[in-house]
Amino acid sequence: DFMNALEEVHPAFGVSEEELLQVIQNGIIHFDLVVDEILRSGQLLVEQVRTSTRTPLVSVLLHGPAGSGKTALGASIAQASQFPFIKLISPDGMVGFSESQKVAAISKIFSDSYKSPLSVIVVDNLERLLEWTPIGPRFSNAILQALLVLFARRPPIGRRLFIIATSSLRPVLTEIGLSEVFDSELRVPPISSLAALEVVLREVELFSGERERREAVGMLVDAGFGDQGQGDGKLNVGIKKLLSMVEMARQEPENVAQRLTGALMGLGM
Amino acid sequence: DFMNALEEVHPAFGVSEEELLQVIQNGIIHFDLVVDEILRSGQLLVEQVRTSTRTPLVSVLLHGPAGSGKTALGASIAQASQFPFIKLISPDGMVGFSESQKVAAISKIFSDSYKSPLSVIVVDNLERLLEWTPIGPRFSNAILQALLVLFARRPPIGRRLFIIATSSLRPVLTEIGLSEVFDSELRVPPISSLAALEVVLREVELFSGERERREAVGMLVDAGFGDQGQGDGKLNVGIKKLLSMVEMARQEPENVAQRLTGALMGLGM
Amino acid sequence: DFMNALEEVHPAFGVSEEELLQVIQNGIIHFDLVVDEILRSGQLLVEQVRTSTRTPLVSVLLHGPAGSGKTALGASIAQASQFPFIKLISPDGMVGFSESQKVAAISKIFSDSYKSPLSVIVVDNLERLLEWTPIGPRFSNAILQALLVLFARRPPIGRRLFIIATSSLRPVLTEIGLSEVFDSELRVPPISSLAALEVVLREVELFSGERERREAVGMLVDAGFGDQGQGDGKLNVGIKKLLSMVEMARQEPENVAQRLTGALMGLGM
Amino acid sequence: DFMNALEEVHPAFGVSEEELLQVIQNGIIHFDLVVDEILRSGQLLVEQVRTSTRTPLVSVLLHGPAGSGKTALGASIAQASQFPFIKLISPDGMVGFSESQKVAAISKIFSDSYKSPLSVIVVDNLERLLEWTPIGPRFSNAILQALLVLFARRPPIGRRLFIIATSSLRPVLTEIGLSEVFDSELRVPPISSLAALEVVLREVELFSGERERREAVGMLVDAGFGDQGQGDGKLNVGIKKLLSMVEMARQEPENVAQRLTGALMGLGM
Amino acid sequence: DFMNALEEVHPAFGVSEEELLQVIQNGIIHFDLVVDEILRSGQLLVEQVRTSTRTPLVSVLLHGPAGSGKTALGASIAQASQFPFIKLISPDGMVGFSESQKVAAISKIFSDSYKSPLSVIVVDNLERLLEWTPIGPRFSNAILQALLVLFARRPPIGRRLFIIATSSLRPVLTEIGLSEVFDSELRVPPISSLAALEVVLREVELFSGERERREAVGMLVDAGFGDQGQGDGKLNVGIKKLLSMVEMARQEPENVAQRLTGALMGLGM
Amino acid sequence: DFMNALEEVHPAFGVSEEELLQVIQNGIIHFDLVVDEILRSGQLLVEQVRTSTRTPLVSVLLHGPAGSGKTALGASIAQASQFPFIKLISPDGMVGFSESQKVAAISKIFSDSYKSPLSVIVVDNLERLLEWTPIGPRFSNAILQALLVLFARRPPIGRRLFIIATSSLRPVLTEIGLSEVFDSELRVPPISSLAALEVVLREVELFSGERERREAVGMLVDAGFGDQGQGDGKLNVGIKKLLSMVEMARQEPENVAQRLTGALMGLGM
Ligand SMILES: Nc1ncnc2c1ncn2[C@@H]1O[C@H](COP(=O)(O)OP(=O)(O)OP(=O)(O)O)[C@@H](O)[C@H]1O
Ligand SMILES: Nc1ncnc2c1ncn2[C@@H]1O[C@H](COP(=O)(O)OP(=O)(O)OP(=O)(O)O)[C@@H](O)[C@H]1O
Ligand SMILES: Nc1ncnc2c1ncn2[C@@H]1O[C@H](COP(=O)(O)OP(=O)(O)OP(=O)(O)O)[C@@H](O)[C@H]1O
Ligand SMILES: Nc1ncnc2c1ncn2[C@@H]1O[C@H](COP(=O)(O)OP(=O)(O)OP(=O)(O)O)[C@@H](O)[C@H]1O
Ligand SMILES: Nc1ncnc2c1ncn2[C@@H]1O[C@H](COP(=O)(O)OP(=O)(O)OP(=O)(O)O)[C@@H](O)[C@H]1O
Ligand SMILES: Nc1ncnc2c1ncn2[C@@H]1O[C@H](COP(=O)(O)OP(=O)(O)OP(=O)(O)O)[C@@H](O)[C@H]1O
Ligand SMILES: [Mg+2]
Ligand SMILES: [Mg+2]
Ligand SMILES: [Mg+2]
Ligand SMILES: [Mg+2]
Ligand SMILES: [Mg+2]
Ligand SMILES: [Mg+2]
Repeated sequence: DFMNALEEVHPAFGVSEEELLQVIQNGIIHFDLVVDEILRSGQLLVEQVRTSTRTPLVSVLLHGPAGSGKTALGASIAQASQFPFIKLISPDGMVGFSESQKVAAISKIFSDSYKSPLSVIVVDNLERLLEWTPIGPRFSNAILQALLVLFARRPPIGRRLFIIATSSLRPVLTEIGLSEVFDSELRVPPISSLAALEVVLREVELFSGERERREAVGMLVDAGFGDQGQGDGKLNVGIKKLLSMVEMARQEPENVAQRLTGALMGLGM
Repeated sequence: DFMNALEEVHPAFGVSEEELLQVIQNGIIHFDLVVDEILRSGQLLVEQVRTSTRTPLVSVLLHGPAGSGKTALGASIAQASQFPFIKLISPDGMVGFSESQKVAAISKIFSDSYKSPLSVIVVDNLERLLEWTPIGPRFSNAILQALLVLFARRPPIGRRLFIIATSSLRPVLTEIGLSEVFDSELRVPPISSLAALEVVLREVELFSGERERREAVGMLVDAGFGDQGQGDGKLNVGIKKLLSMVEMARQEPENVAQRLTGALMGLGM
Repeated sequence: DFMNALEEVHPAFGVSEEELLQVIQNGIIHFDLVVDEILRSGQLLVEQVRTSTRTPLVSVLLHGPAGSGKTALGASIAQASQFPFIKLISPDGMVGFSESQKVAAISKIFSDSYKSPLSVIVVDNLERLLEWTPIGPRFSNAILQALLVLFARRPPIGRRLFIIATSSLRPVLTEIGLSEVFDSELRVPPISSLAALEVVLREVELFSGERERREAVGMLVDAGFGDQGQGDGKLNVGIKKLLSMVEMARQEPENVAQRLTGALMGLGM
Repeated sequence: DFMNALEEVHPAFGVSEEELLQVIQNGIIHFDLVVDEILRSGQLLVEQVRTSTRTPLVSVLLHGPAGSGKTALGASIAQASQFPFIKLISPDGMVGFSESQKVAAISKIFSDSYKSPLSVIVVDNLERLLEWTPIGPRFSNAILQALLVLFARRPPIGRRLFIIATSSLRPVLTEIGLSEVFDSELRVPPISSLAALEVVLREVELFSGERERREAVGMLVDAGFGDQGQGDGKLNVGIKKLLSMVEMARQEPENVAQRLTGALMGLGM
Repeated sequence: DFMNALEEVHPAFGVSEEELLQVIQNGIIHFDLVVDEILRSGQLLVEQVRTSTRTPLVSVLLHGPAGSGKTALGASIAQASQFPFIKLISPDGMVGFSESQKVAAISKIFSDSYKSPLSVIVVDNLERLLEWTPIGPRFSNAILQALLVLFARRPPIGRRLFIIATSSLRPVLTEIGLSEVFDSELRVPPISSLAALEVVLREVELFSGERERREAVGMLVDAGFGDQGQGDGKLNVGIKKLLSMVEMARQEPENVAQRLTGALMGLGM
Repeated sequence: DFMNALEEVHPAFGVSEEELLQVIQNGIIHFDLVVDEILRSGQLLVEQVRTSTRTPLVSVLLHGPAGSGKTALGASIAQASQFPFIKLISPDGMVGFSESQKVAAISKIFSDSYKSPLSVIVVDNLERLLEWTPIGPRFSNAILQALLVLFARRPPIGRRLFIIATSSLRPVLTEIGLSEVFDSELRVPPISSLAALEVVLREVELFSGERERREAVGMLVDAGFGDQGQGDGKLNVGIKKLLSMVEMARQEPENVAQRLTGALMGLGM
């Protein structure tokens, strides 16, 4: 099924295999039901593109706080579509490009997609593509305008395109009129329950044994990260940041639990 | 008559057939009387251009909320004119153009039109052509100035020109002085009555049978979208967005009515 | 005399006959005494340029609301001067020009005029030449500075120049310091009395007969456009817009009076 | 003496005779004592440049309302110096120049002056050179910075330079730090007394005889322009504007006095 | 151990030895425990990069007031890593570069680092790299965007990168969204205790003998720099500025203590 | 000694003799003790650069009101150092340079200095180099950033550099972060005591004899410029402006004292 398809991706003409794999190299940990729901919604949209004649263009915005896993999930959905044309548009590959070079690069990928009957384009990190800064605020209006048009431009008759965009600044997108061009939206939440946290800790094998992990979780409950009480709202960390904290804690084997708790508390303040 | 003419368009020298057809590929659904009134008003203006010697230049602004069908209606009116020169100026074809390239492209189409005794130019999506962003606000003053002049410039003696422009930001146009150059305006409203909605649902055959559609409408009435009561003002969706919702709902055959209602409620909030 | 001279213009070296004729192709309707006064004042200034040795440079600003007839009147005065050099500087001919190209084009016409003993330059639509937008506000300072200098620069000894400029944004000109460079100003008012309106309706033969026109005027009085009462201030329409309304009304022969009234009321709201 | 020297100017190497003559072609009317005082102060500064070894650079700012005669007086003082190098820097000759072309042109004249033992440079109309607009405000910072440096830069050892600048926006100069670079300032006032006005009217021979002029003055007194009473502050007109009014009034021989009074009242309102 | 490693650096391929040495030419004085803690934290991060497979990219921000020793400490940590690729990105080497040249230079160093299995890049003085000025505020958005992307871009599979950045304007970094891209932060404090000050004075041998130094410290206590009382908060000077004061005081051998106290008081006011 | 050294400057390789001499061509009048103190402080800093190994870079800011003698004093200190490399960076030599040309010219002088074991660079008139205008405010951020880096960049090992900068806008420097890069600051005050004024008057021999000068001073006391009473704060004039007033007064031999007093009063208002 779709979930399994994520594992067995078939390379294909026009698919930028390597860059997609790079952004999901740490895998997807199913730490919460919402993770499966997002993947399932993605699959439904893929099917709509494949089958409906009236909507040759479908777009979805994955949004959520920094490090919540938007890029990895977007790339996973794209991979699982097995469409013949799958591309990632990312600011990583455009450092030092001028405004017009960026517009040209983005525009070319859309034009290329029109040659394939079925295409997916992942447009990662919209705020960075737009060169957004809150001071001013400043951003590239040329890139914004190009995206506004490209996200709404119907592919030629007989071609179908699925656009997956990611952003951690949805309010900004709304302000500049970029959120309303999407047909649908999916929110990628941070980890906020101890249960989800435990799934991750088990998966990454931070602790040598079951007992050590339990003790660590106890320490987290003591620190107020428990799911009951007013501590409930306290846990709030993106999976990406959590994985980074885990590795930092791992450096001091004698103090793993303390360092992890400390790092999480630093965030909560 | 005029209504029929929409169906049987005669290709002609200077007519950009394909791009016009693309924007009306989903056809015009006559879901409300206002649709016919808009087409009829368009026809009258076409006749004025054809016949009056004192007004060789006539312009109209089609405005209304996003997705209300402005582009499709504008293109339909242009097609039905059967003028020898019919062109669509659209931001879709100008991605990545510099300000001056856009001005040159727009200006060229106007100059070309002066070679034909009778011409229609559809200037689609003014806010996008102007590269408008509410933050700042920013826009291309060079393009604005070109449009202000071109929309008011009389064609050479013996030539006649009909300009149809579309926009979903009429207040912005007024603010920048672009709405007062038009000789007339036509408002393209969203779908706001259950009766209109039903016409669309029937036309697109979302439900397998009459009964299923009735049930779905019942569900919509229960959700407060009925035409009486305070629910009256609740329904408010552009035909374009509605068609997209319909296709999304179609993906889950077991849940069509629920998904459609949910989608419409999402909009209403 | 001067009034007649308007009809019989003699073509001459350096006169851009065609563009002048184009802007007055609908003629001048003498719907009010003020029309004659404006033409007479223009004639006096023409005489001053021709005769006074101390003022080789004279300039006048024609200002008034949009469509009140500024361009047609300015061109008429210029035509009637019968000076050997008569030129129209208009934004119509400069679409797509860069700031510096516009300055060069404007500057060249002034330099050319210095070769003729007597010259008139009509500088039409100052706000458009300046690329003015109220948002910001933005405008071309390069063009503004060029105009400020050119409007005040004395022609070489032995040359005389008459400058006629038009604008519908006099307050803006004052704000940017452009109105005080003119030696004199003439206000071109909109049509605001029923009597003037009737002159126009008769001239353009909108109605088949005297009776029909009388009935229409009665309808206008009923609609509150009468000259007495509080309806007095209601009528307020530029001759250009009125001519456009007339032609639109003419399209529905059965409803001419109603459409005209409706159009005028639309304006009044 | 100095006053006479104004009449008999000796042409010399490096003197731009023609452009200086053009700006004083209407001559200097000695309508008030202040006119002589300004010329005398100019003469003293000329002498200081010629004789003092410690101040090889002397600069003066002539400022006053629009049309008060600044340019004509500045040019007269420069002419009377009989220095071997006399140049006029004026925006009139720089229409269409880019910022850097203007800086280069200005800078070149200063560099050229350093080749002459004694030089005068008249820098006319600072606000126009700076491309000043009150909206923004905008101006050329490049030109401002060049002027700030050039006005303060000592000529090479053995060279002496006298700078005469004019402006009608002294408060602006102060705001941008350009007024404090001048060694001294001279205010050029408008005409504000009936006596001065009479001197001008006599000089330009507006009236055919003494009696007519007296009657006209009487009319002006009646209009409140008399020197006593509250009418005192009312008269306030630059000599340049006054000369223009005089010529306009001359066009209607039967109404000279009325037109002049009307024009002066228009100003006063 | 690590502390010693700072002294014996092994030159290596790709290491910009000389520029690193230049910034630590005055050595590291261990005037406070915090100095050792910072170096130790740096060492732990170096180990994380070397060993963890899940975090091939680790970044740290050294921040603190001007002159507190950020650059010297960052360079020391980098040196001690003994990674095969160690580079310093500093505004010192980019004077006169255009925005795009700076981005290209920075980007190239990151790309070069991807060729080494283990790399450290010290990005010194972020505010200067960004061309930050508080007036406006102004800064290079192009450089900011490049840094935002480069600091978050994962190196290719199999490569590992450690980024050490320094800044004395952490609040600004937060405002522009540049502080949250770092995995961790280390604060470099100024000298604020008399004990730390004494360590420095001894180390730099400002005084000829023990007695002289004691007297000087007594003078500082009298001036309110003592660790007890309200004088406690008074001492607050970066090590860099302190070293400069020491050398200035050294110029007047008879007055060393007075001059040092005076300089420190000047700072405190 | 140092004071004498000012008189007998030895020309040397890399010293821009002529431009330094030009700015001190009127000499230094020792009108107040503060003049000697400034020169002495400069000498001490020169010695620090020459001798201390820990501070190869020393910088000082001379600031004070317009015309107080900053440039002359800075150049004098530089001359007296007798360092093999002495250069003046002044806006006078950069009129018409673009931003990047200025940065290149400034940067080149710093790079050149690194070739000499001992160098002094006088960076004159920072606000003009920065193209500062209070309106906006505007300035060249490129030049500011270059100066910020160059003023803090350590010369290569074995080279030593002394930087003397001047400015009359110290608060602005602080605002843009340019004042804190200097190791020390020296304030150059205006003349504010009658005693100092008298020293100057004697030195420049404005009066033919002792008696005349005494009378003039009496007149100044009467005008409120005396050192006692509330007149005390009134005298406040830069030496540069004072020298200019003196020369202007000298033009009217019969009225020297009156003109001087008048000029000084004009300043005080
Ligand atoms: N359930 C999950 N969803 C998403 N990512 C996961 C999940 N489980 C593990 N990961 C890993 O977590 C990391 C998520 O990082 P990712 O870059 O996708 O986050 P992001 O939200 O795009 O961050 P940013 O806001 O910085 O763009 C990846 O390394 C991914 O492999
Ligand atoms: N009565 C109708 N009027 C307009 N469009 C209709 C109608 N019936 C069906 N349609 C279809 O609905 C869609 C309307 O989309 P269209 O692009 O014209 O909307 P729009 O208002 O221009 O949108 P946008 O605000 O995004 O520019 C088209 O696919 C058109 O074929
Ligand atoms: N008395 C009149 N005065 C001016 N124009 C008249 C008059 N009678 C008829 N007309 C016609 O009315 C029209 C006036 O349009 P014109 O372009 O001159 O107006 P305008 O004030 O310049 O408009 P805009 O504000 O758009 O520049 C012309 O077609 C002209 O021939
Ligand atoms: N006493 C006078 N002083 C100055 N100009 C005089 C005098 N008498 C007559 N004139 C004439 O008046 C005119 C003054 O115009 P001028 O251009 O010098 O004024 P301005 O103050 O420079 O105007 P603007 O503010 O437009 O620059 C000239 O034509 C000059 O010949
Ligand atoms: N413990 C220490 N930590 C850091 N620097 C030290 C220490 N002891 C001595 N130093 C010396 O102090 C100086 C610190 O200057 P450095 O340039 O590193 O400061 P900075 O904080 O980067 O300054 P800036 O804010 O100007 O960038 C260096 O010369 C360094 O050799
Ligand atoms: N004691 C003094 N200090 C400085 N300058 C003196 C002194 N005595 C005489 N002078 C003369 O006074 C003048 C001072 O001018 P200088 O250009 O140095 O002033 P400044 O403060 O740099 O002016 P600005 O603010 O315009 O840059 C020089 O001509 C100098 O020779
Ligand atoms: Mg991401
Ligand atoms: Mg549309
Ligand atoms: Mg007009
Ligand atoms: Mg002038
Ligand atoms: Mg540093
Ligand atoms: Mg100076």
